[in-house]
Amino acid sequence: MLELTYRRSLLAVANLPPVAGFVKRFGWRLGVGRFVAGEDLDSAVAVLKRLDEQGLASILDLLGEFVASPEGVSAMVQEIETALTRLASAPQRAMSVKPTQLGLGLREGAIDTALKNARRLARRAQEAGARLCFDMENHPYVDGTLTIYRTLHAEGFDNVSTVLQSYLKRSLQDLDDLLALTPKPVLRLVKGAYLEPEQIVYRDLAQVDRLLREMIYRGLEAGAHIDIATHDETLIRETEAFVRGAKIPPEQYEFQLLYGVKPKLQQALRQRGHTVRIYVPYGKDWYGYYSRRLAERPANLAFVLRGLFG
Amino acid sequence: MLELTYRRSLLAVANLPPVAGFVKRFGWRLGVGRFVAGEDLDSAVAVLKRLDEQGLASILDLLGEFVASPEGVSAMVQEIETALTRLASAPQRAMSVKPTQLGLGLREGAIDTALKNARRLARRAQEAGARLCFDMENHPYVDGTLTIYRTLHAEGFDNVSTVLQSYLKRSLQDLDDLLALTPKPVLRLVKGAYLEPEQIVYRDLAQVDRLLREMIYRGLEAGAHIDIATHDETLIRETEAFVRGAKIPPEQYEFQLLYGVKPKLQQALRQRGHTVRIYVPYGKDWYGYYSRRLAERPANLAFVLRGLFG
Repeated sequence: MLELTYRRSLLAVANLPPVAGFVKRFGWRLGVGRFVAGEDLDSAVAVLKRLDEQGLASILDLLGEFVASPEGVSAMVQEIETALTRLASAPQRAMSVKPTQLGLGLREGAIDTALKNARRLARRAQEAGARLCFDMENHPYVDGTLTIYRTLHAEGFDNVSTVLQSYLKRSLQDLDDLLALTPKPVLRLVKGAYLEPEQIVYRDLAQVDRLLREMIYRGLEAGAHIDIATHDETLIRETEAFVRGAKIPPEQYEFQLLYGVKPKLQQALRQRGHTVRIYVPYGKDWYGYYSRRLAERPANLAFVLRGLFG
Repeated sequence: MLELTYRRSLLAVANLPPVAGFVKRFGWRLGVGRFVAGEDLDSAVAVLKRLDEQGLASILDLLGEFVASPEGVSAMVQEIETALTRLASAPQRAMSVKPTQLGLGLREGAIDTALKNARRLARRAQEAGARLCFDMENHPYVDGTLTIYRTLHAEGFDNVSTVLQSYLKRSLQDLDDLLALTPKPVLRLVKGAYLEPEQIVYRDLAQVDRLLREMIYRGLEAGAHIDIATHDETLIRETEAFVRGAKIPPEQYEFQLLYGVKPKLQQALRQRGHTVRIYVPYGKDWYGYYSRRLAERPANLAFVLRGLFG
């Protein structure tokens, strides 16, 4: 409960225009660079190279959420396309794309535009030998994102994946539906970090944890490829134990952690023989992503405050 | 390291005669009753009944370690026999016996006496429909205890079990040897709490944890019946995940916790569908057991100090 209150308060404060203005102006002094690889593609690629050297896989994410204009969408898609060509040179790389970047937030022709863009990027990713993940934003885009994923899956793309968030009450049903697909889907499972209406999410964080665990187990048991995207060390240990018990082959799952979060854990998991993929965000539109990181853990806010006043 | 220092210091202080004298005299005021069911069998049986009502299985333990005289051994064996007849009336009960109670600490004819007593008690337990566990004391009795277990196992007793302690460097090999038995053995796996010479135990507590986990997994994978006797909640969660992944049937394992330790966890595990067995010690010779409980967790010592001065 305290955690939830902290999270909601921080996100509420972060949404106040004067706060946003201040943070956007002084961002890099506020430790944004700890969580964001840089504002341009070159900085991001430099980070990917460093991760390669550390034996960590990566998934690149162009920051930018809730894109609402056709021009915005075109610019995003083009930039993602460029980024995908830069991935070509290295294995173990992937890219993440948000639903409104594809066009799902447009007032007209949203799903058609998004599908067309998704197909174009999936093809480009295929040429680059990279995976493309249809990431989630908040609840209004869940159906659209699932439609995009299912459509491309049905068209035979074997390099696409999507995301389910365990704090949404609908997700367990969504999971069961996706697990019925052939071939088995590739799914990133997360708790979820958007500020959502109370009716559609579980307010009890312990329930969100239990549900994510249940989803991970169910997905692995069904033979899906599961990306376990959490920093919850209990849940990670439980997943390791489950995987060992069920003799899940190492190719069938990976742990995903965010750039800058728990670097020791990233290395420890790698050393214990798991594939570890780091989610690397870059771009100018880092504000929303950054506030969610601070909202997630008081320790992250403490880090920023120490940097400011320490 | 700090933990280990705490444990060693507390046990060293507890071994000082004046300290022992004081605690033995004022025991029940020092909270001994939290960890020990009582000084006589009737008190113990009353506790067993309460556990029955709570849906918890039990394993009764007559306190008394390092018994060195033939008279002491006879008295112990007789008292354990009496206790076993009192178990007859209820299912889900078991009894634990220490190697020197059987006679392994005698100067002459130790192994023969111990084997004879073990056989006699195993038979009596069989008549009572109860399990008998050959518990461990410290390292000088490990070989003898394993011999007793193996002998009775070979004679066809299917109601006996024994214990391995993961802090002993030898235990992984002992486990592998026992897992080769047919039918598969019944083993209680613990970390170990005696003050042992440094050469034969792992000093690194994280290593002791890892090893216990490995032993649990290996035992379950091999099809042995494993009693997971630890209060380490991470390890318990990992075991739950492993069991789920490997689809280990509920009859093949149980969690064992000590009377008075983490009662909430005892109930939570039961509610999550596991068999939970409570280790219930009783008897006049509670001093060694009680000091090991205080040495295990600073929180337990804090409990006592609060009771004294609070």
